Amino acid sequence: MSFSEEEMSSCMINQSPGSPNLSILSFKGAFHGRTLGSLSTTHSKYIHKIDVPAFDWPIASFPRYKYPLEDHVAENAADDARCLAEVEDLIGQWKAKGNDVAGIVVEPIQSEGGDYEASPEFFQQLQSLAKRNGVALLFDEVQTGGGATGKMWCHEWFNLPEPADVVTFSKKMQLGGYFHRLDMLPPQPYRVFNTWMGDPGKLLLLGEVLKVIKRDNLLKNVQVVGDVLKQGLLQLECEFPGKLSATRGRGSFLSVDCKDGKSRDAIVDKMKQRGWFLNPLTILFLYQ
Amino acid sequence: MSFSEEEMSSCMINQSPGSPNLSILSFKGAFHGRTLGSLSTTHSKYIHKIDVPAFDWPIASFPRYKYPLEDHVAENAADDARCLAEVEDLIGQWKAKGNDVAGIVVEPIQSEGGDYEASPEFFQQLQSLAKRNGVALLFDEVQTGGGATGKMWCHEWFNLPEPADVVTFSKKMQLGGYFHRLDMLPPQPYRVFNTWMGDPGKLLLLGEVLKVIKRDNLLKNVQVVGDVLKQGLLQLECEFPGKLSATRGRGSFLSVDCKDGKSRDAIVDKMKQRGWFLNPLTILFLYQ
Repeated sequence: MSFSEEEMSSCMINQSPGSPNLSILSFKGAFHGRTLGSLSTTHSKYIHKIDVPAFDWPIASFPRYKYPLEDHVAENAADDARCLAEVEDLIGQWKAKGNDVAGIVVEPIQSEGGDYEASPEFFQQLQSLAKRNGVALLFDEVQTGGGATGKMWCHEWFNLPEPADVVTFSKKMQLGGYFHRLDMLPPQPYRVFNTWMGDPGKLLLLGEVLKVIKRDNLLKNVQVVGDVLKQGLLQLECEFPGKLSATRGRGSFLSVDCKDGKSRDAIVDKMKQRGWFLNPLTILFLYQ
Repeated sequence: MSFSEEEMSSCMINQSPGSPNLSILSFKGAFHGRTLGSLSTTHSKYIHKIDVPAFDWPIASFPRYKYPLEDHVAENAADDARCLAEVEDLIGQWKAKGNDVAGIVVEPIQSEGGDYEASPEFFQQLQSLAKRNGVALLFDEVQTGGGATGKMWCHEWFNLPEPADVVTFSKKMQLGGYFHRLDMLPPQPYRVFNTWMGDPGKLLLLGEVLKVIKRDNLLKNVQVVGDVLKQGLLQLECEFPGKLSATRGRGSFLSVDCKDGKSRDAIVDKMKQRGWFLNPLTILFLYQ
């Protein structure tokens, strides 16, 4: 693979063919970060995005399930189908306007946007749809990766026919990074590169974290503890109908809806008074 | 300041008025990083940019001086004027197409792009031009900041009438960050925010680095040592005309042009054999 003179000179002035009109498809409610490119794929809260220019890239619906899941199987499968049809339709639309979709970026559980999950079947079909259209599929595991769902990577729950094309991680993993299929590697050196090259000290910390996760069988522990918490939340839903609903999630990465923001805050306040250590991050599982 | 419903909803789908068509003006030869937004302002080597979509943002010429400076005063001042006129013209062009320039991003010395300097007068006029047009001016000091130019920030050499609007730093400063004028602060909390919030351990390291810079008067030392190195390079230019030329830079942040890449590599190889510890980073001062 080599580059033509036209490609080389055009990319220096941000134009095609060197800088092609490619796009990334993302989902409503998604959060993928706040640097300028990532922000074009973030749609969880307007305060992140306002006043900042963005790429004209396609945005599809992400499933919004009815709970309990076992009582709404057909409706939720229909919602999967609706979202997948939208993805395929948007890929076609953007192709038609010369702005091909190069990749899809998706969270295994939409976290910042409200802790919305989607079914393994949704992700399996999304992967096959992406493959059929020659589009790469990136799982953003910045929030879900590292063990909180009871597996190291949340997308392991989906029994995907093929490995993910790209997986991103950060925070709990001590440093930001990604792993990918070998065929995603650019053929030339320095295509993906930076001079900082990570922080080796953080790798030592991460090495110890991973040892403890393995030694103490923490992933299994998250599954056991998460099940207890989930059953408890479901029981509270039964005891207080209309106050709590839609318990969902995997491992200890769980959420429950409160009737409204006021009742959520009241619950959090009372829990604090009873000695629960809660902060604005951990109350995510009470996110309205 | 508050946001209209229209602004709030439009920014969630990457459209104006919420996500406005604002642009950032950068310079040919500039390097400002490789994340997707930053890359739209980077124009140093095609290998960084090829295959990656970019914003349609204006790109102006950066001065390319003739050396020695004292023999080319009028020509170099004319080159400053040419570049500044281009900046003002591009601001007008982008305004006319509804894509107002919100900011200018510039390196005090173009580093990755070939170690090109510009005069204090160029930067003074760039600042006043930016102010006249209501455009913010950001100095990217990722390469030049931290003391290598003999001042903590290279733009301190420019005797600017006003402080810089924004200054970015990284690497030598142990972590990436920026400082800015108070009036650049968004009125609402969380407009500029991330949950990682830096790495306090790095601040401790930076604190010690800064103490040593002060205690050992290292900035002054860089100026003294840099002068010796610069005079030495100028003397070599005289001794070997046609082989070395265009000695330039500030402090020990110096460069000299070799006749061609082959002669540059030969010089570097011989210096290594004589015990100079050179690597691809330090040979930047021999960058062709």
